[in-house]
Amino acid sequence: MAKQDYNCAHRLRVRWAEVDMQQVVFNGHYLTYIDTALADYWRAIGLAYPQGYVDSYANDIFLRKATVEYLGPAHYDDQLCVYCRTSRLGGSSMTLLFEIWREQPDPSPAPLITAELVYVNADPQTMQAAPLPADLRARVRGYERLQAIEAPR
Amino acid sequence: MAKQDYNCAHRLRVRWAEVDMQQVVFNGHYLTYIDTALADYWRAIGLAYPQGYVDSYANDIFLRKATVEYLGPAHYDDQLCVYCRTSRLGGSSMTLLFEIWREQPDPSPAPLITAELVYVNADPQTMQAAPLPADLRARVRGYERLQAIEAPR
Amino acid sequence: MAKQDYNCAHRLRVRWAEVDMQQVVFNGHYLTYIDTALADYWRAIGLAYPQGYVDSYANDIFLRKATVEYLGPAHYDDQLCVYCRTSRLGGSSMTLLFEIWREQPDPSPAPLITAELVYVNADPQTMQAAPLPADLRARVRGYERLQAIEAPR
Amino acid sequence: MAKQDYNCAHRLRVRWAEVDMQQVVFNGHYLTYIDTALADYWRAIGLAYPQGYVDSYANDIFLRKATVEYLGPAHYDDQLCVYCRTSRLGGSSMTLLFEIWREQPDPSPAPLITAELVYVNADPQTMQAAPLPADLRARVRGYERLQAIEAPR
Repeated sequence: MAKQDYNCAHRLRVRWAEVDMQQVVFNGHYLTYIDTALADYWRAIGLAYPQGYVDSYANDIFLRKATVEYLGPAHYDDQLCVYCRTSRLGGSSMTLLFEIWREQPDPSPAPLITAELVYVNADPQTMQAAPLPADLRARVRGYERLQAIEAPR
Repeated sequence: MAKQDYNCAHRLRVRWAEVDMQQVVFNGHYLTYIDTALADYWRAIGLAYPQGYVDSYANDIFLRKATVEYLGPAHYDDQLCVYCRTSRLGGSSMTLLFEIWREQPDPSPAPLITAELVYVNADPQTMQAAPLPADLRARVRGYERLQAIEAPR
Repeated sequence: MAKQDYNCAHRLRVRWAEVDMQQVVFNGHYLTYIDTALADYWRAIGLAYPQGYVDSYANDIFLRKATVEYLGPAHYDDQLCVYCRTSRLGGSSMTLLFEIWREQPDPSPAPLITAELVYVNADPQTMQAAPLPADLRARVRGYERLQAIEAPR
Repeated sequence: MAKQDYNCAHRLRVRWAEVDMQQVVFNGHYLTYIDTALADYWRAIGLAYPQGYVDSYANDIFLRKATVEYLGPAHYDDQLCVYCRTSRLGGSSMTLLFEIWREQPDPSPAPLITAELVYVNADPQTMQAAPLPADLRARVRGYERLQAIEAPR
């Protein structure tokens, strides 16, 4: 995956409180960075979470699986960019890819982090999986540079 | 203030993710420790937050002011004890004192942290201060070793 | 995997600051819980991190990949148990499995979280992978109930 | 204190993981926001922490006391501005004032948070307080709009 395949790019600077005694960002905090990039993604497709999503669809969306590869460390004060795209639209699930690159002080030659997160759309009352709203599929299709794989339904 | 003046003592071990590059607990995390001790306090007086408090009184309680003194650092894996007591019951406010001591690997000769937190009881609809419930006053009086100062009403 | 296959069990109570507006533990915090359980694991095999490991081997160990499945939510004040075991000892890598179950107030019938974390032993100067120390292999073998798969070397 | 008295203004957006079940930013996270603004302050006066400070002076600086007033809540996705200035230069201590205002979606009519943090310059070997470097005093004087009170020495 190359950076130009991503429309959604969220920039942030590593905070002091996020760096541990090994002088690198603690591993769990990358999920916070990813979650913050995802907030930008929802905004970009017109569904600012939570109201945009929950009020539009009377559904909610829950993280089902996260796979994170730690390829290089981020350090205090690094300026990072979190890239985000949808790679797959399933029956009720939605898979997003993330890459975190360092931009400053020296650009990283490769992503520091790659991650795949699978979210499931569900009825918040029953917590049962529910079909991805057609409107959500259309918004993702309209936004992405690379089309997400769509599972046959 | 001496440790024996406190009935409520919450023990915890410092986590890796809470320690920064100076090899000490990041300053904001002590408020998490204090908040966790406060949860024990509410349980100890029979008002496990939030249901115990909110459902009993149809009020909620909000932090108004925190004063934290950093007297010595806590390090990774230290076993700490957070002591907690109510020092003052005002008209609508409640002041709590906290001391954090190291117990292991070597007991600290003095508190690492002392703190005073002022909470205000309020009507959650209007967010206006409301009188401290008489039942809450009674519970605090019944629990504490040292009586809290009570403001004339 | 069943709970009885795990020797290492770390108990914790969910903190207020770890729960988000969906009233569930924020997804990244489970990696903090897992990291905290891992600290217990190192202690249990006699290599309390970081000194026990780094000083013994003149190597350090880095997280390379984390896969977390979110099967059910943990809520505020839940008392959780994080189970931890080594499932694979590779040439320079070590794979650990984690399961997080709720114990109180109502035991969860299945794990809330399952996770697999792959760590790599490395020379901290060059950051190149280095063979897992034979002493580490022996300690893991001596500790675990189920033997870890060992890659042929 | 008015916003125009502050030269240093750090902007941030509240993250999902920072908001608790009361739907407000957890009280300890404001110290992270303040610490992040302080990083900007050190950069602004040419002493990017830690190298700029520690290498220049062979001293380090430690938080001694934090007083935080919680005047109004910040919510998820709020765009905040953290204002920061030095209000006092003591013999070995330095007092900073902070105000946190909401800028978006609706500007707050008053600060949500005001805080005063007292830092002490120290010899990192002995952890004894050491005089504030004259160069640091000069940098603060040159940067601030309102002159800090300087304690007679």
